[in-house]
Amino acid sequence: MSTYKEIHLVKRPHDGKIGPHLFEQKTLPIPTPGEGEILIKQTYMSLDPAMLGWMSEDRESYIPPVELGEVMRSSGVGEVVASNHADFSVGDKVMGMTGWREYVVSDGSGFNKLQDGVTEEMALCVFALPGLTATTGLYNFGEPKEGETLIVTGAAGSVGSIVGQLAKADGLRVIGVVGSDEKADWIVNELGFDGAINYKTDDLEEKLKTLTPDKIDVFFENTGGPIQQHIFNRMNTHGRIVVCGMIADYQSDNPAPGPNWIPLIKKRINIRGFAMPDHWGEVPKLLQKLTPYVQQGKIKYRAHTIEGLDNAEEGLNMLFNGENKGKMMVKL
Amino acid sequence: MSTYKEIHLVKRPHDGKIGPHLFEQKTLPIPTPGEGEILIKQTYMSLDPAMLGWMSEDRESYIPPVELGEVMRSSGVGEVVASNHADFSVGDKVMGMTGWREYVVSDGSGFNKLQDGVTEEMALCVFALPGLTATTGLYNFGEPKEGETLIVTGAAGSVGSIVGQLAKADGLRVIGVVGSDEKADWIVNELGFDGAINYKTDDLEEKLKTLTPDKIDVFFENTGGPIQQHIFNRMNTHGRIVVCGMIADYQSDNPAPGPNWIPLIKKRINIRGFAMPDHWGEVPKLLQKLTPYVQQGKIKYRAHTIEGLDNAEEGLNMLFNGENKGKMMVKL
Repeated sequence: MSTYKEIHLVKRPHDGKIGPHLFEQKTLPIPTPGEGEILIKQTYMSLDPAMLGWMSEDRESYIPPVELGEVMRSSGVGEVVASNHADFSVGDKVMGMTGWREYVVSDGSGFNKLQDGVTEEMALCVFALPGLTATTGLYNFGEPKEGETLIVTGAAGSVGSIVGQLAKADGLRVIGVVGSDEKADWIVNELGFDGAINYKTDDLEEKLKTLTPDKIDVFFENTGGPIQQHIFNRMNTHGRIVVCGMIADYQSDNPAPGPNWIPLIKKRINIRGFAMPDHWGEVPKLLQKLTPYVQQGKIKYRAHTIEGLDNAEEGLNMLFNGENKGKMMVKL
Repeated sequence: MSTYKEIHLVKRPHDGKIGPHLFEQKTLPIPTPGEGEILIKQTYMSLDPAMLGWMSEDRESYIPPVELGEVMRSSGVGEVVASNHADFSVGDKVMGMTGWREYVVSDGSGFNKLQDGVTEEMALCVFALPGLTATTGLYNFGEPKEGETLIVTGAAGSVGSIVGQLAKADGLRVIGVVGSDEKADWIVNELGFDGAINYKTDDLEEKLKTLTPDKIDVFFENTGGPIQQHIFNRMNTHGRIVVCGMIADYQSDNPAPGPNWIPLIKKRINIRGFAMPDHWGEVPKLLQKLTPYVQQGKIKYRAHTIEGLDNAEEGLNMLFNGENKGKMMVKL
């Protein structure tokens, strides 16, 4: 009888620190799908910043935490290798909430087949959480208008890179904040951003001033950190701030305070936090919006792929240390 | 020839400090209205927190500052004492931007006649800036729903007291934050709020917990100050924060920071700053919304009236020190 590996969450992170002690690996016999079920062999598994939240004891968040002793939560892409389900055939490539494991049995709910021409990497980089999140945040809340200026933090990240490219395609001036010169180079020279700020080495106030002569209309926040206040200071009247991620603060027990609210009144600014699970019902509409940009070649992406389930925990740490170049995923 | 007094702004406040040295009083001959003009004798002049902004050198605010040497800006109510204008007769009571002066000549633009049964005090307390601001903030941005909990800071103030009464009339649980036991008593026992917090003497976290068992859905912010973070911590998922005023911080050169933005994502909260001048075009619609509440006796108000133009500057300071009880105005 063949076996497969899965990884369970057994401890909650303290101070946001992720390490091998939080997980336990199990080796189990590969299950047989029952009536109406399919067996999926996962091929690519997504690693996302939201995972730290899912691992933590926070009952107030948008989805409940992973229970201790359960398989760690994740989305992924896989191939149907056995099917007792009328809608799925062996060989179908599917995407859904797979979890940290090599095989998963499902009744098919929550799993969708990849469209023709969509590779596994493209699926996880664009048509999964990153692309849907970027599309929701930018168009539901950012209200981008041609000729305006948008700034996005985490601009080389999975969400940020798509936000910036969508806004560029819509005729905005787009500036990205990144953490390395390599990423700055990529977003400007490969993705076509109008400018990049390296938050680790640049004089933030000066660089912002130079790159946003007409100040900022849309601020798409993926990171938090000290640059937040500088960007906030340069917001235009009726500016929109979309808060999608605060990765710089997730691991801190005492996150830094935010900006004082006086400018919100003076400039009539709107700040909107959002999370994708509120918007699953809009996915068909979101894909309708996103797909033409992809078909027109306007959305480039890069996957940062590591190999093997054993390295998932390390990959997650790379994400929080900003060491990843592109959408983080595990090839199984 | 008779004369009248007007007060000009001659210096900008330093560190938000207001004093007599900022103003200069002039005695001038009472003007004669020209063709198409009216002469208004001001009877009640409004004092508002926004005045500090109008006096300051802040070109980024929602309306330009008062120029040095100009009459200090204010709204007020007066009586038409001479008219060469077809739409106005001697004896009409009118409301508009009068300025710190006893008489004003106008071509009538921006001046509206008081409706029958509306006293000068009611006009300035309810149908002027306070009521319009409360109505705009609560209904355009607060999205109050029956059974929800609303908390309003500056709850005994001109805007806050109306916000709370509108929300009570709509079936919300309403808690007000005030700075004295007398004000707490007034909002609970006269206005019908469900509870009051004295931010100067109560244990904020404990009192909030007791008074908002279902936490907070709408936070109407008029003051800023340390209670802001405590209220922010108790916001519910999909909560709305309407930022209308930050009077505790206006006089500070280094306003305290605001809350970290992580909870905005976890709870998908919206924060919206607004200022009434964006909404002048909606006034007829706003009055349609507000008037029935007033007619049904659901909006109580109190005016804090001081006498004489000479005391306007002192009245403004009372406002910033929280010494006023009710809508601050000067009887001329």
